[in-house]
Parts: sequence; C-alpha cells; structure tokens
Amino acid sequence: MPLRYTLQAECPETGARAGTIETDHGTIETPIFMPVGTAGSVKALSPRALTEDIGAQIILGNTYHLHLRPGREVLHELGGLHKFMSWDGPILTDSGGFQVFSLAELRKMSEEGVRFRNHLDGAYLHFTPENVIDTQRDIGSDIMMVLDECPPATVDIATARKSNELTVRWAKRAFEHYHNTTPHYGHHQALFPIVQGAVYPEVRRESADALLQLDAEGYAIGGLSVGETADVMYEIVEVVNEVLPHDRPRYLMGVGTPQNLIENVARGVDMFDCVMPTRNGRNGSLFTTEGLVNIKNKRWERSPEAIDPGLDLYASQNFSKAYLRHLIKSNEPLAMELASMQNVGFYLWLMREMRAAILEGRFPAFRAEWSERVAQKV
Amino acid sequence: MPLRYTLQAECPETGARAGTIETDHGTIETPIFMPVGTAGSVKALSPRALTEDIGAQIILGNTYHLHLRPGREVLHELGGLHKFMSWDGPILTDSGGFQVFSLAELRKMSEEGVRFRNHLDGAYLHFTPENVIDTQRDIGSDIMMVLDECPPATVDIATARKSNELTVRWAKRAFEHYHNTTPHYGHHQALFPIVQGAVYPEVRRESADALLQLDAEGYAIGGLSVGETADVMYEIVEVVNEVLPHDRPRYLMGVGTPQNLIENVARGVDMFDCVMPTRNGRNGSLFTTEGLVNIKNKRWERSPEAIDPGLDLYASQNFSKAYLRHLIKSNEPLAMELASMQNVGFYLWLMREMRAAILEGRFPAFRAEWSERVAQKV
Repeated sequence: MPLRYTLQAECPETGARAGTIETDHGTIETPIFMPVGTAGSVKALSPRALTEDIGAQIILGNTYHLHLRPGREVLHELGGLHKFMSWDGPILTDSGGFQVFSLAELRKMSEEGVRFRNHLDGAYLHFTPENVIDTQRDIGSDIMMVLDECPPATVDIATARKSNELTVRWAKRAFEHYHNTTPHYGHHQALFPIVQGAVYPEVRRESADALLQLDAEGYAIGGLSVGETADVMYEIVEVVNEVLPHDRPRYLMGVGTPQNLIENVARGVDMFDCVMPTRNGRNGSLFTTEGLVNIKNKRWERSPEAIDPGLDLYASQNFSKAYLRHLIKSNEPLAMELASMQNVGFYLWLMREMRAAILEGRFPAFRAEWSERVAQKV
Repeated sequence: MPLRYTLQAECPETGARAGTIETDHGTIETPIFMPVGTAGSVKALSPRALTEDIGAQIILGNTYHLHLRPGREVLHELGGLHKFMSWDGPILTDSGGFQVFSLAELRKMSEEGVRFRNHLDGAYLHFTPENVIDTQRDIGSDIMMVLDECPPATVDIATARKSNELTVRWAKRAFEHYHNTTPHYGHHQALFPIVQGAVYPEVRRESADALLQLDAEGYAIGGLSVGETADVMYEIVEVVNEVLPHDRPRYLMGVGTPQNLIENVARGVDMFDCVMPTRNGRNGSLFTTEGLVNIKNKRWERSPEAIDPGLDLYASQNFSKAYLRHLIKSNEPLAMELASMQNVGFYLWLMREMRAAILEGRFPAFRAEWSERVAQKV
C-alpha cells in the first residue's frame, strides 16, 4: 500500500507535530529517530535489541555501503535487506550520494551522474539517478531517496543554485525511473526527493517549490549539519517547512544532537537520522537524561552510579558508570553494545517524550525543560 | 556455605560423571563449561545474554587482567566482581600465573614468587602465593585458584619435577594464607590447588598425592593443552583422575576443542574453560552442531542457511550464514556478538547434552555419535 501519513496533533505555539506513517512493514509514530544501520547492522545492536530494548520503529541503511558489501546481487538473491538482516520493521535508505561526497575519491560530476573510486577497493563506480533507484529496489527499502548533490555550507549562492538545479533535474529523472520500475519483494517502496540550496533561503524555496511538482509521498531536507551554525540550520528548516506540504512527512537528513532534534521538531520535522549516538558511544561520549557524560573521564573510575538512572533500559540501569568506563578502556566489545543501547535508546526515548508532549498539548513546556538540559555537560 | 559437590550419576563404561556444585551464588550442573570473561566481560556477551540466551551457569575471570584493570582497589570499593559486572552467578578466577607465563615480560621466578613487567604499561609486579589470594579476595570469586608454575610441554622430567615441587610448596603457602584470611563480601570462597607435572605420569601422581593433603574443596589439572598431543593430554588426565578424590569436582584448565571436552568428560573431568569459542568466533571459525564452519569462506556468500539450524539460539536460528559472513567481513561489532553467542552457546549445549546422556545412562552412545562429528569440517 502507498505510504500513509496521518497528522494527529500540532502544537499551537510551535511547529511541532505528531503523526503516524503507515508502511507495509508497520506503522511509525512520529516524530521519530531512525538508528543508522550503515552496512546492514546498527552498530552493536541486534534487531532484537532494537525492537525489544530501545523500541526502534524504523532504521536507515546506506545504499553506498550496501552496494559495496554485500552487493546488489547478493541482496537480491537473498530476498532484500529486511530478510538479510532479520529486521521486520520499515527501512529507509539514502541514495548513496552523501557518501560519494564524503568517502569516495576522484569524484567526477556530470549531468549523467557521478563517477568515483570507492573507498574500499578503489574500483570505479558510476551512480546515476536511475541506477541508485535500481539498487534501492534490490535492497527493498520502504522509503528510498533520490540521488542529490550535497554542496558544502561554504558555497556561494550562484554555485548553490546551480547545484540545486542539477539536484532537481536528477530528482525528476529519479521519479520517472521510479514510476517505470516496480518493487521486487511485494511491498510498496516510497521515494522522497531532497531539498537542497545550502544556506540560502531563496534557493531553498526554489528547491522545495520545484520538488513539490513531483507529488512525492514525503520530502527530505538535505545539506544541513554540514558546517553551518545551528541557528542557520534552524532558519533554513523553517523556510523549507513553510513550503513543504502539510500532509506529508518531512525528514531532516543527518541531524543531529539531542538539542537539534528538539529544536527541529519545534519547527515541524517528523523524521531524523544521525550516526552521532552510535559513533559518540564508541568514543565514550554518552547521551543521558542528565546531559552529556564523558565516560572515559577519571571522575567515573569508582562511580557505582547507574549509566543513566533516569532511563529505563537494560544498559542504563544494570551497569555502573565505572564498569562502562572500564569496558571502554579495556576495549571490550560489550562496551559498544552498552554505549549504543544507551545512546540510541536515549534518542528514541527523547522522540517518544516529545511525541507524548505534542499529543498532550505540552510541547512548549517540554522544550523549555529539556532543550538546554540535554546539551549540558555532567 | 562451603562448596558442596554431589555426584549424581556415573557412566558404567567410561569415567564420565554428572553432578552438582552448590555455591553461595547458585548451583552448577556438571559437567560444565565456563565462558571466559577475561577482563570482567565475556567477549561481546552481556550477563543477560549469558543467562537467558546460552544458559551459562558459571563464568571465569582472569586475576592477572583484573589486577591490571580496573585494579584491586576499584573492585574492592565497588563490592567485588559480581556487582561490578552485574553477574549474579558463580565466578571462578585463575591465579594469574598462566598469564604471567604467556603475556608478561622479563619474568623472574624465585621461591618467594614471580616478578615481571606487565604487558600493558610495563610496570613491575610481584605475584606471590599469598598476594594472589588477596587479589582474589578483592575480586570475590566463588572459586579461587592457587599460584602455580606452568612449564612448557617440552621440559625434561627433572625440570618438571622441580617445577612441580615449587608449585606444591606454593600451594601449601596459599592454603595457609587462605585459612588466615576471610571473604570480603559475605559469600564463601573455595580454593583449588593445581596438579602440575608436565607430560610425566609419575610426576603428575606425585603432584596429585601431595595436593590431596590440602583437603581442598576441588582440584584442578593445569599445564595441559600447552603443546602436547591430545593423546598425551588424555593419558595424563586419566592418571591424575585416578588419584584425585571421587567426591570433589575436577577442573581441567584451558581445555579445549569440543572433541577435547567430550573425551575428557569421558575421563571424569567436571569443569572446563577455554578462550577458543570466543577467540575463534572473532576470526569467523564457528562451532556448530554440523561441525566446524569457516564462515569467511566464499561458499557462504549467498547461503540463506541459518548459522546453525540444529541449535536453538537467537543467533543460530535468526541469521543466515551469508549475513554473519557479511558482518565479519564488514567488521561490524554485531558479528562478534552473534559469533560468541553461537560458539559459547554451542559449548554449553554440548555440556548439557553430555550431562543428560550421563544421567540417562547413554553417554557411550553420545560420545560415539558426536566425538568425530564436532571435529569435522563442514
């Protein structure tokens, strides 16, 4: 069935909204955070831990990585990513574009697409608006993304406009190819275009306006959290969300800190993804209900305190700060499982709390209480 | 309460025996395998996974590693290892002796003890029969081990005898110190001496005879699986178990492959530990009910087959061989969790199956069916 977005409640004072997105793999309650499962696995968290421990409702896979390993053919032969990784819930995949710009080498752009050497074995690859759809058909994600160009925050307005025009032309080609192809595994796959335009409100509006013509099932905002200040990010999100349709989900790509989540929910964003909770966890930076904890700090060496007394998770409640510090310092693999469970679990908890606050009409109070708190260092 | 060993059944044809060991942290059903939790964590397995997924009943900690990190003082301050790592079941700790001989540098033996530079920061440490008991009191293990000297399998008989005599003198000092000290955390701690004597039956008998005078609650066999053939190992185990008391548990240290477990259970061993299931798992070598699987092999690239169709574990049943291969090749942390769950889970399953076979009087048939099967390459 097509993706169905239902708006359940809106905050009368801010742009925050609560809703549901129905997919063939289940219903997602928004606003939602999507844990990042780059190569078919959310770092150190089994599908069971994602579901039973932290309540993940949808995860994200990276087309660039999955294309390299295990590859399209293996995924197709084994029935797609859901089956491959034993995850029954919805999956969103990016287009691979962002990784081409951040990981690959000898990148060469053309009207046709982007040619590059991949970071694993150096072999040349060519991504086009059409073939990244084909790859995502093989992956079988519930929500696919178009190929876009993601310029740095520092480009001038002329370059931003030129880049966005390419992104829009690519989006049109992507949708044409999308409508000419069908899913392999029997479930519906939506396709989201991506609003670009760097830090220029004018170009962002042009981008959103042009993409509206595609009548997509949802819209993404890309090219943020790439070096601009938080205030600029918030301003751009406001500008774009004024243009995007009210009755479709809005996905802010690659954002961000817990404070970023609160502030962007306040501006009407429904979906987020970010590697920060898993990546920071590996380095001992914890997101907790008390604020940011650097667990490697000597002050935790003998601390019998639970990892996060305020969070009702297996990892948060059953192990001391001293123990997690010890595991990280000793390079024990369990450290990563506990840190990921805490950090991704905290992100999902924060989204559930925001959703409840919106539904109960008390989002402004929640935001006032938590926006600074989640950013303070313990 | 003191350790209580109850012999429940003996195989009439072999030396295999089934029993229970009662400790203040619960009852262990023997024969048993103890997963190795070197630095206060069994590689990639949470205490919950150990209990709920694979049915671990007792785990092993390494005194050498725990002495270095987090250190005696931290462990003492935080109430011992059980509390520190959130494991409520029994714990056995080695004395650190084996690691001094395998990991440390600039080792200098004397009658007093062994002085060495540790492998982490190079600082000098001095282990004595007395101070390793003190450390294990701080750890709070349910079963402690004496400090011993573990010579290589290649020593001549004179050296083996001389070394064993030192081990016996150290064991006597250890027991004297043991009787003059008390547990810190309110639960009983047993102390096992270690039979040495390399590959010489005569020296092994002398060792076991001398240690019997200590009237210990259990006995360990050390210095095997250090380079000698399996047949020599089995012969030595037979020789030693003829001397060891019938009414105390027997622990064969650091052994071994699944076939080694079966063959040594057949010779009357009750307890085992080995890093093989966790270490091999990290490298993609799986122990399964079908035999040994090298999951990195290209032949599994597109295999939809479950990791181990014959084993009823989350990891074994819910993920394909192709997926685990992909995770290992992609260096995903989940690989280690799934491989450890499979391998350690298989070891524990094998022990439970042997125990059931002994209790039901069909151990010889079980041994005949499985001893070769667990060693064959799939």
